[in-house]
Amino acid sequence: MSKVLRVNMTDLTFKWEKLKPEQEHLAGRAFTSHIVSTEVDPMCHPLRERNKFVVSPGLLAGTYAPSSGRVSVGAKSPLTSGIKEANAGGLTGTRLARIGVRGLILEGAPPAASKDWYTLLVGKDKCEIVKKNEYAGLGTYDLIARIWKEYPSKPGIIGCGLAGQRLQKAAGVFGNNVENTDAGRYAGRGGLGAVLGSKHVVAIVSDDTGGAVPAAKENDRFDAARKTFVKSLDAHPITGKLKDDKGKPFGALKNYGTNVLQNILNEAGGLPTRAFHEGRFEGAAKISGEAVHELVDRTRAKHGDKAQGTYGHACHPGCVMACSNAVPYEDTGKLQVSPLEYETVWALGTNLGISVLKDVAELNRLCNDLGVDTIETGNTLAMLMEAGMIKFGDGPAAIAALKEAYNPKSYLGRLVCSGASTTGHALGVTRIPVVKGQSLPAYDPRPIRGIGVTYATNPMGADHTSGYTIAAEILGIKGKVTDPRDLKKADLSRAFQSTTAYLDSSGYCLFVAFCVLDDDAGFKAMTDTVDSFLGKKIDVTEYGTAVLKAERGFNQRAGFTERDDRLPEFFRTEKLPPHNVTFDVTDADIDAVFKGF
Amino acid sequence: MSKVLRVNMTDLTFKWEKLKPEQEHLAGRAFTSHIVSTEVDPMCHPLRERNKFVVSPGLLAGTYAPSSGRVSVGAKSPLTSGIKEANAGGLTGTRLARIGVRGLILEGAPPAASKDWYTLLVGKDKCEIVKKNEYAGLGTYDLIARIWKEYPSKPGIIGCGLAGQRLQKAAGVFGNNVENTDAGRYAGRGGLGAVLGSKHVVAIVSDDTGGAVPAAKENDRFDAARKTFVKSLDAHPITGKLKDDKGKPFGALKNYGTNVLQNILNEAGGLPTRAFHEGRFEGAAKISGEAVHELVDRTRAKHGDKAQGTYGHACHPGCVMACSNAVPYEDTGKLQVSPLEYETVWALGTNLGISVLKDVAELNRLCNDLGVDTIETGNTLAMLMEAGMIKFGDGPAAIAALKEAYNPKSYLGRLVCSGASTTGHALGVTRIPVVKGQSLPAYDPRPIRGIGVTYATNPMGADHTSGYTIAAEILGIKGKVTDPRDLKKADLSRAFQSTTAYLDSSGYCLFVAFCVLDDDAGFKAMTDTVDSFLGKKIDVTEYGTAVLKAERGFNQRAGFTERDDRLPEFFRTEKLPPHNVTFDVTDADIDAVFKGF
Repeated sequence: MSKVLRVNMTDLTFKWEKLKPEQEHLAGRAFTSHIVSTEVDPMCHPLRERNKFVVSPGLLAGTYAPSSGRVSVGAKSPLTSGIKEANAGGLTGTRLARIGVRGLILEGAPPAASKDWYTLLVGKDKCEIVKKNEYAGLGTYDLIARIWKEYPSKPGIIGCGLAGQRLQKAAGVFGNNVENTDAGRYAGRGGLGAVLGSKHVVAIVSDDTGGAVPAAKENDRFDAARKTFVKSLDAHPITGKLKDDKGKPFGALKNYGTNVLQNILNEAGGLPTRAFHEGRFEGAAKISGEAVHELVDRTRAKHGDKAQGTYGHACHPGCVMACSNAVPYEDTGKLQVSPLEYETVWALGTNLGISVLKDVAELNRLCNDLGVDTIETGNTLAMLMEAGMIKFGDGPAAIAALKEAYNPKSYLGRLVCSGASTTGHALGVTRIPVVKGQSLPAYDPRPIRGIGVTYATNPMGADHTSGYTIAAEILGIKGKVTDPRDLKKADLSRAFQSTTAYLDSSGYCLFVAFCVLDDDAGFKAMTDTVDSFLGKKIDVTEYGTAVLKAERGFNQRAGFTERDDRLPEFFRTEKLPPHNVTFDVTDADIDAVFKGF
Repeated sequence: MSKVLRVNMTDLTFKWEKLKPEQEHLAGRAFTSHIVSTEVDPMCHPLRERNKFVVSPGLLAGTYAPSSGRVSVGAKSPLTSGIKEANAGGLTGTRLARIGVRGLILEGAPPAASKDWYTLLVGKDKCEIVKKNEYAGLGTYDLIARIWKEYPSKPGIIGCGLAGQRLQKAAGVFGNNVENTDAGRYAGRGGLGAVLGSKHVVAIVSDDTGGAVPAAKENDRFDAARKTFVKSLDAHPITGKLKDDKGKPFGALKNYGTNVLQNILNEAGGLPTRAFHEGRFEGAAKISGEAVHELVDRTRAKHGDKAQGTYGHACHPGCVMACSNAVPYEDTGKLQVSPLEYETVWALGTNLGISVLKDVAELNRLCNDLGVDTIETGNTLAMLMEAGMIKFGDGPAAIAALKEAYNPKSYLGRLVCSGASTTGHALGVTRIPVVKGQSLPAYDPRPIRGIGVTYATNPMGADHTSGYTIAAEILGIKGKVTDPRDLKKADLSRAFQSTTAYLDSSGYCLFVAFCVLDDDAGFKAMTDTVDSFLGKKIDVTEYGTAVLKAERGFNQRAGFTERDDRLPEFFRTEKLPPHNVTFDVTDADIDAVFKGF
């Protein structure tokens, strides 16, 4: 029986609550957005006591359904001032689900003057709020290593790093990797790490000792569906385990990870380069997924068993797609960073004009250790370059700038953790690539207009995952769209957004969409797992639409209007090479996405 | 015949336009807000080519009406993202009016990559757009000295300093003093200096050689009215020239300037101290208007004719109230800064816990030289203190921080010119005292609730001048309100806001209100000057309401809702000593101010 743990950080108490009947089908994003939209005053300060920090494993987390172990966190965002959900892999989703915790709600906050920091230990029917001042101020690598030493069961950990503890708006919520102490599993976006920091909680440790695999209401049907779904995922060229005639695996994600997109977007001319000045990067190949794959192979050849690099690495237990990686130092074979994903390589590489893979990996390692979102931080560093404070392409200068963040008295160090909007404004930049205060990710909306509509309209600020039209516009999932400019962008974006809201609630990784959009049997198997788990039929679009309505409603009550659903002006006025196009979707077409919501 | 000069900074051309019949009665704020609200896309980027920078002398500027020479500047604000008007004294209002220029509209902008900077020379029937790269990068003292050397007619000058040239959001529009080269006449608020910087215009020089005093439509009536009005102003204890039994002058403004308020607000417990933590400052007397008066007298006694300090100093030609001052260095008698006003002493003194007058004056001198608004910059420095980067009360540290702004590569230097909101967000501060992004001025809204309603609702962001309820709540103008908490705040604030919009358009200094609210004959004389000048009856409230409606309409089209008409959360949750009150006006009461607008 699932339950909810409510922790009050003002008086350091907690209580267990029963899941209400109307919450039975709500998990992951649907649960966090339900709590935030019904319990949090949309006008509250996001970093003071009235905001709430909500954690919820996806519906199928902890089960044997494939790639379903993701965990959502939600709150009012200090970056966008609207509602926010972010999700990640790691161990926490599975751990919490197996001890029956559907949701964890952190409310209140210690007094502003408090110097005390806390860790929350959640186990089967137990919760401890432990003062752990010695955990504050550590880099996340050290923090995770210390927690794993103290709790040898290898618990799930989520938490905030230095940036979150300083209430900075680029702060993400880190999650630990399955097998190493890199804080590689980021629910990175929207500054939710700062919300956790405002509660004075450094880490939430979840231990599933004594727990059990969650049982489906209709177990046989669930079992059959999950097996069919695994087959479907394994057979798809993007998500699968396919091998070529010579027996060499060619599944895109397993071999090259998400960063397979680097060359694809570059080819398409939609790869934002040097702060969105160009759509094609001359250095893309050197930092592509293929280059990471070769680095891993080369390092293995050199260092054998000692080589810590890998591809085809699962971000959470039970993931069959295994799109992640661990990047080694070539000279020693030791781990530099895990993972190095497409968005990160773009944000900290392409977007800064940096094509030295080791420098990009180092920037990622620093972000992970400091506790900041790589997309936000990459765009922030780009603002330093746009303002002429450091040069585009200068990796060592970017690394030095980011290292400043270890010094709490450094103003530069504060800026690099505070997001592109704040930093751009501080430096007088007029080309700040944000929507609702949140930085744009790795797809330029000028040649790829559908993703621009998603950036503009989704409730989370500029975000690709919330309505990943790239699948249709670039990757040709469900049949290649020959000219993506012909698509009705509003319909495309809305359809992706509602489906995504469903997926973000199910526990399934968004990447299952590559497969299920192409394979009707896979789609049915996936929805069967959800329906049989709950013992009732769920309509994907209705479910997703309800989540979006709750989120949009929160934002409206926070003062958002359609005028917030706009891209920055320069996307309409500056042409992007090589296609030399501007973003030309009309405001009316943008507003059509959520007309009547 | 009044006309309008329209300058295009994209192609460096200009044209003269006739004033349209429906614009005949529009001047000052009414003119700038009319142009901005009808010609500027509310969704445009405020620091790119689609914004417009509008200058307009008040209706009676250049005439012999007393204290009527103020000049308004307006644009979409980069600080608030809404409409903005700011006005000041100086020479420009008079100069432009006497050559028949009702408005100057700067539109377009040089390409973003341009390194060229321009000066605009406006004379009788002439305009020159002169490339003057050597003027860029200078402190404003040097800049004004150079311009006055090149143009010996002592023209009016308005312009942007270093901060505006770097597009920073605390940048004000400076105006030159009448008799020295201090850029003491700031249309400081809303970051309008950055708008001028975005047009690559360092200075607008206006020369009235060959001009004439503007003629009233009904000249005899005008002449009689202005004389009556002078008598009324001279007879009022705040604005006047009164002397006591021993022949010693005691007019509040002439002797102690605006900073007479320091002790008054301190006494009332509404003087925001150390970043709005307290309502009473133990060091207030040391930096009060009385202290400045004594410093001037002491320095005169010591240095005789060489002493450059003064009180009772007029901010523009023809001001009979003469509330301004020039503050000397006591050791040399030379000018340190002119003027040192109440808001500035509060922002850079009280608000930072600094009670050393010389340090406060030095901070003011630096602000004037850099081209930043003192209110915004004081609140910005307070954010450094709130974040623990420097200590409350540490004048030398505050001075050193502000001096960083001379170094364009200093991140701290950038922050101190970028406003409290940006800096507070960069530093993780949760008590940022802004409304619509603009910093609060020198009256705490908790004990003085009417001014809180003005801060929340007026179209300009937190601003005292736009609806100065202090006159009724604290100063007892029109009869002392014994408990200001009894007043209907919405009605009070709306009445002040509409009257102010009228005054800001007339060219009259807002301070005439101290007199005209108390003296019906004075009020009638004032409106008579306006009516006889135009040759038609103007209803004060209707006129002001029309201005406010244009401004609120612009803001609505820019995406503002009633949710933007709110004070920061901490004013409702933190009690202010000594009265230990929170801001408790309901949202409904706040929204009542502009219900139906």
